[in-house]
Amino acid sequence: MNKITAEFLRVVSDFKGSFQGAFNIRENGECAGRQSSKNIKIDTKKDLPGIDIHIQPGTLGETVYIPACVTHTGVDDLVYNDFFVGAGADVVIVAGCGVHNDGEGEARHNGIHRFFLEKGAHVVYREKHLANGSGAGAKRIDPVTEVHLAEDACLEMDTVQLGGVDSTLRKTTAELDARARLLVRERIMTDGAEVAKTDFEVTLTGEDSGVDLISRSVAKGTSHQEFLSCIRGRNRCSGHSECDAILVGNGTVTASPALEASHIDAALIHEAAIGKIAGEQILKLQTLGLSEEEAEQQIISGFLK
Amino acid sequence: MNKITAEFLRVVSDFKGSFQGAFNIRENGECAGRQSSKNIKIDTKKDLPGIDIHIQPGTLGETVYIPACVTHTGVDDLVYNDFFVGAGADVVIVAGCGVHNDGEGEARHNGIHRFFLEKGAHVVYREKHLANGSGAGAKRIDPVTEVHLAEDACLEMDTVQLGGVDSTLRKTTAELDARARLLVRERIMTDGAEVAKTDFEVTLTGEDSGVDLISRSVAKGTSHQEFLSCIRGRNRCSGHSECDAILVGNGTVTASPALEASHIDAALIHEAAIGKIAGEQILKLQTLGLSEEEAEQQIISGFLK
Repeated sequence: MNKITAEFLRVVSDFKGSFQGAFNIRENGECAGRQSSKNIKIDTKKDLPGIDIHIQPGTLGETVYIPACVTHTGVDDLVYNDFFVGAGADVVIVAGCGVHNDGEGEARHNGIHRFFLEKGAHVVYREKHLANGSGAGAKRIDPVTEVHLAEDACLEMDTVQLGGVDSTLRKTTAELDARARLLVRERIMTDGAEVAKTDFEVTLTGEDSGVDLISRSVAKGTSHQEFLSCIRGRNRCSGHSECDAILVGNGTVTASPALEASHIDAALIHEAAIGKIAGEQILKLQTLGLSEEEAEQQIISGFLK
Repeated sequence: MNKITAEFLRVVSDFKGSFQGAFNIRENGECAGRQSSKNIKIDTKKDLPGIDIHIQPGTLGETVYIPACVTHTGVDDLVYNDFFVGAGADVVIVAGCGVHNDGEGEARHNGIHRFFLEKGAHVVYREKHLANGSGAGAKRIDPVTEVHLAEDACLEMDTVQLGGVDSTLRKTTAELDARARLLVRERIMTDGAEVAKTDFEVTLTGEDSGVDLISRSVAKGTSHQEFLSCIRGRNRCSGHSECDAILVGNGTVTASPALEASHIDAALIHEAAIGKIAGEQILKLQTLGLSEEEAEQQIISGFLK
């Protein structure tokens, strides 16, 4: 694995020279390291680029790392990763992605992740995206996530885009069986002329299923962000989505959340707010000795935490 | 004017045998009565079916009535009404619509209203929609409303669909200049197999312009309602929209509100909630002696008030 990858891994997936337990490191479309554990088997897909991750039923407390990096221009990495999580398992999946581009061509990572959680499985999924490099070529990360939650399964998605990604299109679809839960915490920061679009489609099929979707974004420079969501309640269920955005400079944001209730016992709620940081918040921190820029930075950090 | 029209006028536009001041009654595509006042002139359009309503600058405290009725099957009434409201005027416009259909064919009223409010004008616009009749033919009311608010102008739209309308498509667009205000209170009740779609597009162009859009709906039977809105903030401005829906029986509701902020000082907020009446609310009223149906009816009346 090259130096750029090693540095990315440190930031996006808590890499400290080695991983404990199961992991797969993808670098410029190839495998730069892999290890299965007793309970977590990682296999190369036979028909497509990518891996199958099989987590044994009842696996408890293990973490699997599957970071992916693109470290030079001209790479368009497309990968299919499938997670099969056995009944009653309770694990953490860390799936960071870094894209570095010093050249003129585009560098892109396009990860297509499918999650199949069996009855009562619980997964915490953490994903950090970061891009850097001195080239004029675009750095793109376009994740597609497909979630299938069986009865009583729970997926907690915690996703962050740290910066430097010129363009991202994030598409997440989920279908929930009875009593399944999906919790999403998404934070996206854009600056310069960056563009970010995020699109959630959640179908609450099972009785007493529920989703809680919170998206926070900061659009600086002349960047533009679009938030789309659609929560469909087709049974007795609860759905909540919240989209908060802070504008800085000439950043612009569009939020288009939709709720579809087609069952008398579907309870769906949405909230959205877009605006700049309130002047009095800045002022308050200035009276504590911070400069205007420091105050703004501190408020944004807190908002995206 | 026929008896059905007279009865509609009583319900949708507070008709008590006569109108005070300016009015125009439209019945099955024709004029069934008109009166201008000193300050409010109503003229037949030269190029299209419909009327031009000119309200003199500074007109205060007057009400103009422009009800429209369709009283039999096979009528497809299309009408263009333009309101030119002079600077500083402060008036009320009452624009109810009734559709009666005892036959097999469709009966439809399609009113295209344009509002041009000059500087500082203030208009309260009240619109009630109602349909009835024993025929199998559809009763449709499809209003199109276009609003232009000059500096400091204010339009308060208070619209209600009372019931019996098989299908409605309500399209409202508005553009606001500096310090202009648009306040919308919309209430729609559907039952049986009725379908209602309402679509708002509000562009906040002027500095310190603002919109407050509140839509409440009750979907009973197997009826379906769709709420769409888009608030565009293109200057220092404030926008708030709220969409609350109550489901009864097998009614279904979709809410798709969008916010577009393209100015650092645009502050936009949206809230939506869809669900059935909470069980404890019904229970509370039952302990006061109401039946379950009476309790539900009382809660819905309060919600749509």
